[in-house]
Amino acid sequence: MKIISAIDSMKGSLSSIEANEIIGNVFQSEETEVVKIAIADGGEGTVEAFVTNAKGECRKSSTLNLLGEKIQAPFGWLEKEQTAIIETAAAAGIQFLDFTESTHPKNTSSVGVGKQILAAIDSGAETIIIGLGGTGTVDGGIGALFSLGVQFYDARGEELLPIGSSLGFINSIDTSNLDPRVHDVKFILASDVKSTLTGKDGAVYMFGKQKGIQEEEFLEYEEAMKNYEQVILRSDSPRNGDGAAGGLGIAFRKILNAEVQSGLELVIQHSKFKEELKTADLVITGEGRIDTQSLQGKVPVGIAKLAKEHHLPVIAFAGSVEGDDELFEKVGIDVVLPIVDKVTTLDDALSNAKRNLRNPAIRAKKLLYLEVNKEG
Amino acid sequence: MKIISAIDSMKGSLSSIEANEIIGNVFQSEETEVVKIAIADGGEGTVEAFVTNAKGECRKSSTLNLLGEKIQAPFGWLEKEQTAIIETAAAAGIQFLDFTESTHPKNTSSVGVGKQILAAIDSGAETIIIGLGGTGTVDGGIGALFSLGVQFYDARGEELLPIGSSLGFINSIDTSNLDPRVHDVKFILASDVKSTLTGKDGAVYMFGKQKGIQEEEFLEYEEAMKNYEQVILRSDSPRNGDGAAGGLGIAFRKILNAEVQSGLELVIQHSKFKEELKTADLVITGEGRIDTQSLQGKVPVGIAKLAKEHHLPVIAFAGSVEGDDELFEKVGIDVVLPIVDKVTTLDDALSNAKRNLRNPAIRAKKLLYLEVNKEG
Repeated sequence: MKIISAIDSMKGSLSSIEANEIIGNVFQSEETEVVKIAIADGGEGTVEAFVTNAKGECRKSSTLNLLGEKIQAPFGWLEKEQTAIIETAAAAGIQFLDFTESTHPKNTSSVGVGKQILAAIDSGAETIIIGLGGTGTVDGGIGALFSLGVQFYDARGEELLPIGSSLGFINSIDTSNLDPRVHDVKFILASDVKSTLTGKDGAVYMFGKQKGIQEEEFLEYEEAMKNYEQVILRSDSPRNGDGAAGGLGIAFRKILNAEVQSGLELVIQHSKFKEELKTADLVITGEGRIDTQSLQGKVPVGIAKLAKEHHLPVIAFAGSVEGDDELFEKVGIDVVLPIVDKVTTLDDALSNAKRNLRNPAIRAKKLLYLEVNKEG
Repeated sequence: MKIISAIDSMKGSLSSIEANEIIGNVFQSEETEVVKIAIADGGEGTVEAFVTNAKGECRKSSTLNLLGEKIQAPFGWLEKEQTAIIETAAAAGIQFLDFTESTHPKNTSSVGVGKQILAAIDSGAETIIIGLGGTGTVDGGIGALFSLGVQFYDARGEELLPIGSSLGFINSIDTSNLDPRVHDVKFILASDVKSTLTGKDGAVYMFGKQKGIQEEEFLEYEEAMKNYEQVILRSDSPRNGDGAAGGLGIAFRKILNAEVQSGLELVIQHSKFKEELKTADLVITGEGRIDTQSLQGKVPVGIAKLAKEHHLPVIAFAGSVEGDDELFEKVGIDVVLPIVDKVTTLDDALSNAKRNLRNPAIRAKKLLYLEVNKEG
């Protein structure tokens, strides 16, 4: 019997790789092979997932964090495909925020993301996959573009610093010094974020608060972002995804000609998932939270869809479950199994995540293998 | 396929009958028959379990509660066996306590239990099963015996009131006025309580506190109980079970020649459980709490033991689970399934018990029926 385990990370508790490892430990036996596929959606864990699935390597690069401080940050490298994988969160991640004035989005920059792109190009990358997600910046991606040679000027022709507070003053963008090597690279954005750059669901109103923009600052920040949007779009129209990662979406789309792909699909493409499906007997997936209100774009739903092309049964483990079993079945998830199994607090549930996943996995295995005469 | 559902009550949330009903609703189908066996251990729900399983009836009787107030209390009646079933908790139950002076065990009495016995004898009972458990009295059973005609005297020959405070003064017991009909009745005590009347695990030290005896009163109450024990035992030795139901155990053993049987075994005996086992394919049981520290005497363990005589798979649902899966398997429980499935408080878990049992039951069914090619 062959089981594919492809569980998404459970935020605050388990990485995808750890979760798959637990499933492997429970189900692997002489008769049962467990194939583990690491999962990510473009956010944290994306590099690790690609590298693990494709047996690639992690390369270190010197870069800058969102405050401009020197840091080392890894990017993934797949030798055969000459492909680099970058997470925007590695240099511009929300983990660098301390919610003081100095880490306020108006003062921070995604320059480090651009430096990682240069490092990947230096490595000889023909394709660069950029996982958008988990950033603490709202600079419209001007920081990253600046690192690649792009310059931003105000109405008086003064060059602007590549930080959030410059967005409202950008009057022209000069790409004449853009590193010419970017034209030979295929840029792919791994993202499941559908936000436009501005508007109610945009980079400011939707994600600004969690990055430290105060509600009373929203209007002004949004106006500044709208100014930038107009300049970079010219006659083009806004698109969904432009607002991902504080606006890195629009920057890479317009200047690097990047195309957006679903993070999950990209990860799957660069793994042996589809190949293994052909000979698999059961697919196990999972997510921190599964509810029927937000099934779209969820990892277990994507995994189940592919599994059902081969008519395979699908089990999904979830930290929390809300909704109607019939709806889960409709999207191909035969059984949703909650991993909380006792009266407990959220904190305890998260800190006991390993035990919490292991126990229901053991029970599921027992029920699957229980010898019941169903024809009796 | 035939499933037997035999789930114990889950205290504070679901009766055995309700729990079995939920299992029935989930598993019953054209192909699957669910046979429900109500479970009780001698405490609350014992009458209901016997009556439901054996399709008996409930008969009302006028009796007294532990304060001596008139109440109506049902007893069970099995016509074919000419057997009555009484719960000591119906008249002398802890539900009558308000923890004021008037319901203090020294002032209360099990007279009502005796009156129920008389009502059962009036009905023509050849056998009376008395479920011991859930009482609020600690009167050594002198109240119940008093109703049957037994009299208690102090050293000066004064007759004593049949209440807890008399225990220390009992010098002689006169059974000459005992209702002679009791000699033609077989009395069976349904109890899984192993307490002796006195001592560290006795009626006072073990169960006194929850009935309102203060710790500073323990020593004096225990001395009084020891006096009573000496008088009623004469040259006989104390036995386990004497301390059940505030001492009703010793009263019925010594004066009514009652024999003690496991509550679960009695319930099973008076049901079609063993008959149905012969043609069953799966047994589902359960309990409010299952842990490997206190497996002995637990309903799911007793049920599993009988199921394994027929090599049947056993699933147990539990409100809370603690312990090692291997130990559960050793006692014949193949899978223990917790019914809490989300971050929640105990109060919420108890008040959502119906949904809480239904959901894991649905998931268990799905896993059992999931078509996985295990030979693949």
